[in-house]
Amino acid sequence: MKKVELLNFTTLYRFGKPFETEATVIEKNLLVFNKTSTIEFFEINVLSDKTILTFKLEDKDRVYGLGQTLGGLNKRGKRYKLYATDDPLHTPEKESLYGSHPFLIVSEKFGFFIDYPSEIIFDIGYTKFSKMIITVHSKDFDLYIFNSKNNLEIIQEYLKLTGTPYIPPKWAFGYQQCRWSYPDAKTIKEISENFRKKEIPCDAIYMDIDYMKDYKVFTVDEDKFPDFKTFVSEIHANGFHLIPILDPGVKIEKGYEIYDEGVKNNYFCKDKKGENFVATVWPGYTHFPDFLNPEVRKWWGEKYKRFFEMGITGFWNDMNEPSIFFVPDNLNEYFEKIEKLKEKEIGLEFFMIKDEAVNLSNKREYYESFYHETPYGKYTNDELHNLYGYYMTKATVEDGFNKYISNKRYLLLSRSSYSGHHRIATIWMGDNMSWWEHMIVNIQMLMSLNMAGFFYTGADIGGFGANASPELIIRWMQLGVFSPLYRNHSAIGTRQQEPWAFDNYIEEIMKNTIKLRYALIPYLYSEFFSSVEKLKPFISPIFFHFDDETSKNIEDQFMVGDSIMAAPIIKPNARGRFVHLPEVKWLYWKASKVEDREIKVYDSGDYFVESNLNEIPIFIKENTLIALNEENINYVNEKNIKELTIIGLVTDKAEFEYFEDDGDTYNYKDGKYTKIKIKVVKNNNDYEFEIKKDENEDFISSIEKIKFEIYDEKGSKINKIIEL
Amino acid sequence: MKKVELLNFTTLYRFGKPFETEATVIEKNLLVFNKTSTIEFFEINVLSDKTILTFKLEDKDRVYGLGQTLGGLNKRGKRYKLYATDDPLHTPEKESLYGSHPFLIVSEKFGFFIDYPSEIIFDIGYTKFSKMIITVHSKDFDLYIFNSKNNLEIIQEYLKLTGTPYIPPKWAFGYQQCRWSYPDAKTIKEISENFRKKEIPCDAIYMDIDYMKDYKVFTVDEDKFPDFKTFVSEIHANGFHLIPILDPGVKIEKGYEIYDEGVKNNYFCKDKKGENFVATVWPGYTHFPDFLNPEVRKWWGEKYKRFFEMGITGFWNDMNEPSIFFVPDNLNEYFEKIEKLKEKEIGLEFFMIKDEAVNLSNKREYYESFYHETPYGKYTNDELHNLYGYYMTKATVEDGFNKYISNKRYLLLSRSSYSGHHRIATIWMGDNMSWWEHMIVNIQMLMSLNMAGFFYTGADIGGFGANASPELIIRWMQLGVFSPLYRNHSAIGTRQQEPWAFDNYIEEIMKNTIKLRYALIPYLYSEFFSSVEKLKPFISPIFFHFDDETSKNIEDQFMVGDSIMAAPIIKPNARGRFVHLPEVKWLYWKASKVEDREIKVYDSGDYFVESNLNEIPIFIKENTLIALNEENINYVNEKNIKELTIIGLVTDKAEFEYFEDDGDTYNYKDGKYTKIKIKVVKNNNDYEFEIKKDENEDFISSIEKIKFEIYDEKGSKINKIIEL
Repeated sequence: MKKVELLNFTTLYRFGKPFETEATVIEKNLLVFNKTSTIEFFEINVLSDKTILTFKLEDKDRVYGLGQTLGGLNKRGKRYKLYATDDPLHTPEKESLYGSHPFLIVSEKFGFFIDYPSEIIFDIGYTKFSKMIITVHSKDFDLYIFNSKNNLEIIQEYLKLTGTPYIPPKWAFGYQQCRWSYPDAKTIKEISENFRKKEIPCDAIYMDIDYMKDYKVFTVDEDKFPDFKTFVSEIHANGFHLIPILDPGVKIEKGYEIYDEGVKNNYFCKDKKGENFVATVWPGYTHFPDFLNPEVRKWWGEKYKRFFEMGITGFWNDMNEPSIFFVPDNLNEYFEKIEKLKEKEIGLEFFMIKDEAVNLSNKREYYESFYHETPYGKYTNDELHNLYGYYMTKATVEDGFNKYISNKRYLLLSRSSYSGHHRIATIWMGDNMSWWEHMIVNIQMLMSLNMAGFFYTGADIGGFGANASPELIIRWMQLGVFSPLYRNHSAIGTRQQEPWAFDNYIEEIMKNTIKLRYALIPYLYSEFFSSVEKLKPFISPIFFHFDDETSKNIEDQFMVGDSIMAAPIIKPNARGRFVHLPEVKWLYWKASKVEDREIKVYDSGDYFVESNLNEIPIFIKENTLIALNEENINYVNEKNIKELTIIGLVTDKAEFEYFEDDGDTYNYKDGKYTKIKIKVVKNNNDYEFEIKKDENEDFISSIEKIKFEIYDEKGSKINKIIEL
Repeated sequence: MKKVELLNFTTLYRFGKPFETEATVIEKNLLVFNKTSTIEFFEINVLSDKTILTFKLEDKDRVYGLGQTLGGLNKRGKRYKLYATDDPLHTPEKESLYGSHPFLIVSEKFGFFIDYPSEIIFDIGYTKFSKMIITVHSKDFDLYIFNSKNNLEIIQEYLKLTGTPYIPPKWAFGYQQCRWSYPDAKTIKEISENFRKKEIPCDAIYMDIDYMKDYKVFTVDEDKFPDFKTFVSEIHANGFHLIPILDPGVKIEKGYEIYDEGVKNNYFCKDKKGENFVATVWPGYTHFPDFLNPEVRKWWGEKYKRFFEMGITGFWNDMNEPSIFFVPDNLNEYFEKIEKLKEKEIGLEFFMIKDEAVNLSNKREYYESFYHETPYGKYTNDELHNLYGYYMTKATVEDGFNKYISNKRYLLLSRSSYSGHHRIATIWMGDNMSWWEHMIVNIQMLMSLNMAGFFYTGADIGGFGANASPELIIRWMQLGVFSPLYRNHSAIGTRQQEPWAFDNYIEEIMKNTIKLRYALIPYLYSEFFSSVEKLKPFISPIFFHFDDETSKNIEDQFMVGDSIMAAPIIKPNARGRFVHLPEVKWLYWKASKVEDREIKVYDSGDYFVESNLNEIPIFIKENTLIALNEENINYVNEKNIKELTIIGLVTDKAEFEYFEDDGDTYNYKDGKYTKIKIKVVKNNNDYEFEIKKDENEDFISSIEKIKFEIYDEKGSKINKIIEL
């Protein structure tokens, strides 16, 4: 891995006295630090309680970024409020989701990052068609301006500033099965056995909130999971990783270790009166650990040890916006209002009854009413609101993993996050729905989150809420082949989404789809490492790769690494889709199974390409290569890869760098990996094949043979095998 | 207008003793009446309380119809519950909307209509990928099977059975402005004057619920509308139609005419105890008129006279599912539940509090608890639920318009409807949202409703709920150019959507867009009449016109009449879109203004066509013609049309039949209209122009001149003027 270089076109403008969020990793004195009152690009208005930054948008300006937000890839035309919120209904008008990533690119002009941990509103050509109006609800924040016209350079600069993206273990590139909730050990065992019996590859099974005793964090319900340790080791022995959920809210219950310790040591957030703040979440009345306090993080991080000791290296930290169902006093106020209403004939007051009930959750005033004791002083949660999830994750990583299993790579998902989070863990996209409309949201958010450094991320495949139809689950599983995090998840009360939950026809397609994903892992894993090394999004819009005008309009196709363009079918009943194939020739692999390769060459242009329900459109860029592992495997680490199949359309020359390490540790940082450089050169009608191995004696690759399947512009195939 | 012919491939299967819904207009003895136990296409299971019809779907089967439902144009992959429901949040998983149109086409196989006025569930490849499972919650219903493989023939047969589509007055093809609510006469006057001052054409302004005194139907609030009669005549004199809303719920208030008469004459629906049923809607506690009783309809229809006398000929009947906010007893039960909860620490019971509050509206049990006295006996509303809106509309039409202003055409929108409704009035699409995702829903529903005979219909342009962005309002207004009902509507608390509600740049585009619509009215009105005459959907999918495979996948392009294919931009920030141009050549008119005609010829194929924010993609089919009125007008009936501009790409021959009548009466039925047959024939490089007038002495057309603008395959233009 390369060292981060000094930033060379970034200016820091400091407003007031910002809180040190730990979003960034660079010493501020390595930056151009600018205190002038005029700021390039923005007109600035500092008001008594907020600062307004205005940028004049030209018609041609496109705006990208904001990480985890709804709205298109191009963020113009909407208003976004970055204030972490647990909103389970992602309808298009929603302004807030779970995290905050205030990093934006104005295409071909500049980029910027506002390091401020509470509410920022981005009104991007929404109130006024030609204005981006940003309202920072403070006078204390850092504004970084990345003065480059190149999208990729801006992202690289942002990542140098905020840190190199997190790399999960290799098994995290396998398929993962989740459900709220698999009720007990027996069910999880059955599911794991079903995967193996049916030879559907799978690497991880999640445990949602019901594995806990009364939703108490760091407990396991012994009725449902008797002898949990043995259960975990059995599941692990079968090639699965078990991934428990953890919530920040600590149940108020005397005798419960976490509660008792938290109270005793003053680890919980206080309310205005100095009492432990009470909020209602899954366990009922709870207190929130004050993760902004380093001592609390140390305490919390240590608690994960019980799981580490069982070999658990995957977790998801949930509800850490933090989500609040209600605060008891506010519920009582609601009851009092109702009491008063009851005395008269109720008409339209009814809407108050409905709306107030709904609005009792996640009220802003709750966050204004509890406090954090930080190394820099006392703050309300509201003032640092967007940091809570990030700091819970810091506890897990810096005071958990890094201390107790420091050379072990982990899979860690958090729901809430802030800029910088991407260097220690990742997020998933939260509670989406089994809606076709959420497939394009998945794609757009993959690209936006990649720009913000969350290279490894993903949505709940098949949709979390609502019911999936057989066709939707297929098409979403197909989209998921290209999603770094490939996790199928569904909510309580909705239709099951395991591969066998539908009929045989659907199961067969899902199985082939998952197998295709596993075959692609050599490509995906190599390209992922390369992306991190180059600080270049793993999942990216096609206009990051091509300069033509049409590409700028395309938000439902995306590049996966440098060779593959995915163009998933995301509409019901479609037996094909429009694709834009920019600038070069493309191999169209209409993939139904790994081994059935219907491949055709397309010239650049616009097409309606056909694709049956069982077929996944994969486009491979001219003069690039992809690498497949065609052997059947049940999970990523089941067998060493012995053969690679290399596919490409070569009209001049093409290269691919295969990367392999132990997949599980940080030893790659010490050079313990193998890189195999594979090159195909076309000379007239002849092809030359070159293989160069860069191997470290402490990590020897298992690859013995490389099979080439190279196509020319007419679609004729040349096969070649090289033994290593 | 042609007479309806006898049906020639329809079989009626009667189950039990169905209620006479008045969906159909044909004497049943003119039909093949089949009592056999085996039924073609379906496997039938009659159970104790329901009947299940199962059809095996093949992979290639496509299913169309169901009128007003969410889900794609092809209805496969979803579950639909036809039970009229006021649901203001049209998210994709919703199974019920406001109406019921149980008519379906299984493409290239057959069609069918289930005449049953309560709940029917259509599970179309949702539970099982390859099965359509229909559950009729009764043993008494009529099943009509249309045994044809031709989509259009099936629709024609359905329309012969259920009646010829309603034709609104010509002014209803103009632009219409709505808002919940323009608060008073002054505001409405200002708006009407603004349209005229700014020379933005407009034909109608709506009055939403706040014009009434305390939401009492058939009243006008005199504080807000002093001297209502004069106000109406002034608005009308300025070329606008004023369209008031009417709700069925009658406020319980002694001394209020409608209430007093209803009580006195026993016109209201009764509850189980025989008392007038109490439901809470806008006015507070109300009673529902029993529209299933002919005497009640007669009474209700007469009430409209007060408006007729002021020259009002447009209404919208709202809330007629009927929507019920809550029933007082149920609200009290809710309060009692809360009372009990208060005694303990509330945790997850909170969700009950929230959910029950939300679910107090439109509960099924409400509809089971009140009764209709029909000519065929007493029924619960639940048993005849889907007829309520239709029968309210029957009262308006058959006992209102037809009796008191019988030769006057009217614009009548209803929110709820049933099959058959389309022959006396229309519906709008209900409470959509300012979501880009609802533009495709608008398009798909236009096509599905057209199949069900609602040729003249439309969605709230710009979206009703949530806030429109400047770009969304532009793109939706552009889509609306092709929507028969062209009404911009927005809800209380959301951003205003009048053309001048945004900045000047947006206003200018909206103005040009509306003017383009007015220019197209000669084409739209002629083709609309022709569609009704031929019983052929006015708005139709492209695969109704072309046989190629790709067309079957296209749900976001549509034919408007026989010459125009609309391909609106329905994605944010797009400066173009993919289009499929089937089989023939097409003229692409990138329309920004009527007079600026950037026109290009395209061969059949798939393209990404560019279109700036101010440009509307219009495609004109090879060898067809369209007719424009290029003169500026402020409203449809302001001036007689003197000149027509005819545009087309003619490579062989093309014809267009221009239709004109008084636009306001039924005199066209007596032949009082003019048809001008316009024909262009290409012979080598020469064109012949033919004009044939079919004129009735009682209606003389005002057209004096026809200007031709004809393109050849290379895009060269030939101009020709013919004076009449």
